Amino acid sequence: MSRSAPSLPLLNCDMGESFGNWKIGLDDEVMPYVDCANIACGFHASDPTIMRRTVRLAVKHDVRIGAHPAYPDLQGFGRRSMACSPAEVEDMLLYQIGALDGICRAEGTRVQYVKPHGALYNDMAADPTLLRAVMQAVVRYDASLPLMVMATANPAPMQALADEMGITLWFEAFADRAYDSRGHLVSRREPGAVHHDSEVIIAQSVTLARGEALTDSSGGDLVLSADTLCVHGDNAESVAAVRAIRDAFDALAGA
Amino acid sequence: MSRSAPSLPLLNCDMGESFGNWKIGLDDEVMPYVDCANIACGFHASDPTIMRRTVRLAVKHDVRIGAHPAYPDLQGFGRRSMACSPAEVEDMLLYQIGALDGICRAEGTRVQYVKPHGALYNDMAADPTLLRAVMQAVVRYDASLPLMVMATANPAPMQALADEMGITLWFEAFADRAYDSRGHLVSRREPGAVHHDSEVIIAQSVTLARGEALTDSSGGDLVLSADTLCVHGDNAESVAAVRAIRDAFDALAGA
Amino acid sequence: MSRSAPSLPLLNCDMGESFGNWKIGLDDEVMPYVDCANIACGFHASDPTIMRRTVRLAVKHDVRIGAHPAYPDLQGFGRRSMACSPAEVEDMLLYQIGALDGICRAEGTRVQYVKPHGALYNDMAADPTLLRAVMQAVVRYDASLPLMVMATANPAPMQALADEMGITLWFEAFADRAYDSRGHLVSRREPGAVHHDSEVIIAQSVTLARGEALTDSSGGDLVLSADTLCVHGDNAESVAAVRAIRDAFDALAGA
Amino acid sequence: MSRSAPSLPLLNCDMGESFGNWKIGLDDEVMPYVDCANIACGFHASDPTIMRRTVRLAVKHDVRIGAHPAYPDLQGFGRRSMACSPAEVEDMLLYQIGALDGICRAEGTRVQYVKPHGALYNDMAADPTLLRAVMQAVVRYDASLPLMVMATANPAPMQALADEMGITLWFEAFADRAYDSRGHLVSRREPGAVHHDSEVIIAQSVTLARGEALTDSSGGDLVLSADTLCVHGDNAESVAAVRAIRDAFDALAGA
Repeated sequence: MSRSAPSLPLLNCDMGESFGNWKIGLDDEVMPYVDCANIACGFHASDPTIMRRTVRLAVKHDVRIGAHPAYPDLQGFGRRSMACSPAEVEDMLLYQIGALDGICRAEGTRVQYVKPHGALYNDMAADPTLLRAVMQAVVRYDASLPLMVMATANPAPMQALADEMGITLWFEAFADRAYDSRGHLVSRREPGAVHHDSEVIIAQSVTLARGEALTDSSGGDLVLSADTLCVHGDNAESVAAVRAIRDAFDALAGA
Repeated sequence: MSRSAPSLPLLNCDMGESFGNWKIGLDDEVMPYVDCANIACGFHASDPTIMRRTVRLAVKHDVRIGAHPAYPDLQGFGRRSMACSPAEVEDMLLYQIGALDGICRAEGTRVQYVKPHGALYNDMAADPTLLRAVMQAVVRYDASLPLMVMATANPAPMQALADEMGITLWFEAFADRAYDSRGHLVSRREPGAVHHDSEVIIAQSVTLARGEALTDSSGGDLVLSADTLCVHGDNAESVAAVRAIRDAFDALAGA
Repeated sequence: MSRSAPSLPLLNCDMGESFGNWKIGLDDEVMPYVDCANIACGFHASDPTIMRRTVRLAVKHDVRIGAHPAYPDLQGFGRRSMACSPAEVEDMLLYQIGALDGICRAEGTRVQYVKPHGALYNDMAADPTLLRAVMQAVVRYDASLPLMVMATANPAPMQALADEMGITLWFEAFADRAYDSRGHLVSRREPGAVHHDSEVIIAQSVTLARGEALTDSSGGDLVLSADTLCVHGDNAESVAAVRAIRDAFDALAGA
Repeated sequence: MSRSAPSLPLLNCDMGESFGNWKIGLDDEVMPYVDCANIACGFHASDPTIMRRTVRLAVKHDVRIGAHPAYPDLQGFGRRSMACSPAEVEDMLLYQIGALDGICRAEGTRVQYVKPHGALYNDMAADPTLLRAVMQAVVRYDASLPLMVMATANPAPMQALADEMGITLWFEAFADRAYDSRGHLVSRREPGAVHHDSEVIIAQSVTLARGEALTDSSGGDLVLSADTLCVHGDNAESVAAVRAIRDAFDALAGA
């Protein structure tokens, strides 16, 4: 199965992470500027009514809808690793993708890709057995759905597994994070791990979009092939950064 | 939309109501003798792994799979009424039907009908606004899916609403319950409300299957038009009753 | 058991209603101005870590800590009535009061009163069986803990039940709500049900504190004997109103 | 703080692990033969009503009540490790111990010790930071409550930490499990890890009670100093084993 290669990285953003009476995220403000909405499925955040509203918002702005499944941990927001078996992970993904797709059907649309959330996203990057379970779930749900995974300097092993399983990968890079020489994210505990300066964030986005080399944390060149770029709608600053990235991408596309 | 009218009532049974480490129901024993498995969707019982196992069992025995959605109340097993708004009910049904359908897709099958569970089943029978919300969810998910509702002596109002909404109803009767003259179930608090004698249960099943009149609790004749009959797999006695009803129906079909 | 009668109504405020990653309420801002913090116990909001932080904040400002137990419904924020039996309600109150008291012990304090939340608060006002179950829980936990209940024009029946059970009641009035002639809150669906003008809110607080008559929704005089006044810390406006009420009460106390 | 050293190991058993409509464990049958009931606190199993019933049963049989707190994971029965921070673990223990104590107060008793459950029990044995958090919770709740921990060939480090924290430990051994030479349980994946022969189980119990050496999995002598012995009430066989151990202990005590 050949990999889908959009000319410019798609901007993807976590959405619909409110829950009941609790609100998080400026979904209304950021939705118009992204390509892909990673919509929480009720395990780490959201509920059926918030999912419905979020799907409706994505449809209105013609944004692709992705299932954003997670470990079952509302209190921990899906950020605490849980020792779930690969079979349990496969089943909980089918459940969550299907649940969001049920909401989508009522709004005349469908789930278009899958991006696991938080601790599950990290765990599958570190554990090939878990990654296989995640791929299995997506393939068995609908083999045409792409799966977002982290771009690294060495995507070949993941790509080989994906080819074996018959699944499309969308490699994801981060505009606001520093990378080490392997193309892994520098730990948040390290100084300089997260970019806060919007000029830096926009510049890194453009570099990634052009397929040029980033400077990694040891000063070397790092080329990451990114199908999609993760952006954030948590607050006014991050929304402003997303708008600026969108403008920069529009300029690139028009060039 | 015309109503589906099987010649003999379909035997439907609640299934997959275990949860995590806790087991309920003799699903393996009763599955071979029923036509329809009402599979819990994780809100009143079950979890993705149990749903997977139950769907697989239904597929093996060529039993139709129904979504059995409920209020979000594991501790109360979906038997406690909750003041959810019609919109919330519509959304939680879409979520649960979709979730089960996600599991079904991985097993090469699909959800084939919907039967709300417990307090939600009762509440929708009492509140037309809630019933409309339930129908809305099913129609928006897939207008070809039948909805199971309680058979009464006066099915016309429900049928009229169903016709307006464009949904098929399957009217359900109970083999082990006494009925009053309106065709409502006699309250469990009344003596004689539940039949425990398997001869009585089988006889009532056959009477319903033949379309003949039951004797209601005031001694009158009660004709219920039943597309499906609710049976139980809780224990060895109820499974034996299901087998006996199946044998009786086979005899009727062969006659 | 005689009723505790503080000279000025105590200001009570719902607190600690965040959950995991989700934040609600300006607890830090409002805590210095109230007498009583109604702290969520994990059933409608909060979690053990947020409870710990909230108890610590109350201790710092020398504010009395009340358990704020609710129906088990995080998604509905405890605002959806649930058909729980009186025995279930008694047990879930013991659980929640004890849980908060466990957190309190680690901070060198204890739960000092109980105020049921949301739908449970309303349901117990409407159903004497439920009210008795709530009182039973409090008495069995610690008969010295006061229970907050809604002040009405006719507190005698509730007081009689409380005397029989051996429990202290704290009658609660609302500074920002209109009352009907029975001393019941005007439904939020009616125009004028909620006061938004802070002058009106402060004036109603002072009237209640002086034991003078309010004007009810039909234009008559309504005297409510209020041991405590419910205030809100949801946003900057409501916090400003609390500060103004506190200033007004300080002036009254100094007079 | 000196360690409590009962002459014969106390028999402790997990209890109250049903949940809502789901039943597990023969609590009624096994309660008369044990000394200590480890009662689930609603995070891995149980609910307030089942906790109430279980506490009542323990009181009736004069059995000591222990809090059996766990990770918040009903579906996984507290058996899946979760990456909770030490502070989160401390808070969730305070919550659960307090909740059970709230139920106890209504039945005229109190929590008398603490035994963490499942994955949390294992994780604290492997991670001193987590163990310290658990001890912190118990000490802050009530420094007189003993904490059950796993007996090993080298209890000194745990004991040293306990002495520093001012907490009593009750070391726990297992009658039905094989031990390796460090006094750790042989993994369930190894052959012979679990004893199924009741003669073997009773013999190991008596050996532990006498303070004599077990034969470890490599054929060597292993002395475990056990304050308490874990037994099971899952099914008729395990209950019979508990009765036999009780008889053997009675014989030892009478000798």
